[in-house]
Amino acid sequence: MEKKDEMVLKRIGSIRSPLTSREECPKQASEGGHEGMIIIEPHLRDGLEGLEAGREILIFTWLHLADREILKVHPRGDAGRPLRGVFATRSPSRPNPIGLHRVTILEMSERGMRVAPLDVIDGTPVVDIKPVLEISREG
Amino acid sequence: MEKKDEMVLKRIGSIRSPLTSREECPKQASEGGHEGMIIIEPHLRDGLEGLEAGREILIFTWLHLADREILKVHPRGDAGRPLRGVFATRSPSRPNPIGLHRVTILEMSERGMRVAPLDVIDGTPVVDIKPVLEISREG
Repeated sequence: MEKKDEMVLKRIGSIRSPLTSREECPKQASEGGHEGMIIIEPHLRDGLEGLEAGREILIFTWLHLADREILKVHPRGDAGRPLRGVFATRSPSRPNPIGLHRVTILEMSERGMRVAPLDVIDGTPVVDIKPVLEISREG
Repeated sequence: MEKKDEMVLKRIGSIRSPLTSREECPKQASEGGHEGMIIIEPHLRDGLEGLEAGREILIFTWLHLADREILKVHPRGDAGRPLRGVFATRSPSRPNPIGLHRVTILEMSERGMRVAPLDVIDGTPVVDIKPVLEISREG
């Protein structure tokens, strides 16, 4: 049972990717550029209506292997760089390990979509998808 | 107790804002432009080290008043526009009502920071903060 004030995320889908360990993941998507599949839970596929190939979207993931207790990290995992607060970095280590990935839809399919670039470990939960806003400062 | 595979968000902070109802919130931040305060939980303030006035950041909120069961909405709440899947819109109604707000830090303070533009209801939980990446496609 979900308590009234609890913020419990639902898995809306899963990443299918050739990456199977954290060591294979580049620090930022701009350095990599693999394709990935996003498989959406069957009962939520109506929520995709209006998305199409060529659109840019933001994928929100839950980086389930992250350490949620760390508050300072060496940026980009480089021990030679001074420690910084996790909120000043994109480290997966943070109290709520939400990953944010800006990708282009390559193809819509019955089960979800194919996107790139996406360098996320196979099986990572997807928790939200939003369009990139063309006009505003967001996204 | 948190079950192993549950994705439970922790409140890392709270929005302090002059907006007290959804009706006062513009549909997109670009239309509004109020200032807001982000008050960070005392035990997590070490995570802010490295952030400073002038930096652009992404604030992730939990839009606690949203309807999590809706899968199709009229874009921008306009009943004259055809229904679209929630993942093709920025509607707060979606399975996981995560809000994403791109803001500039106006001032750091002992308890958190002052930012703009931020049109979010007073008391909204903050669940993550990330820097905008200047070089990559993200953010």
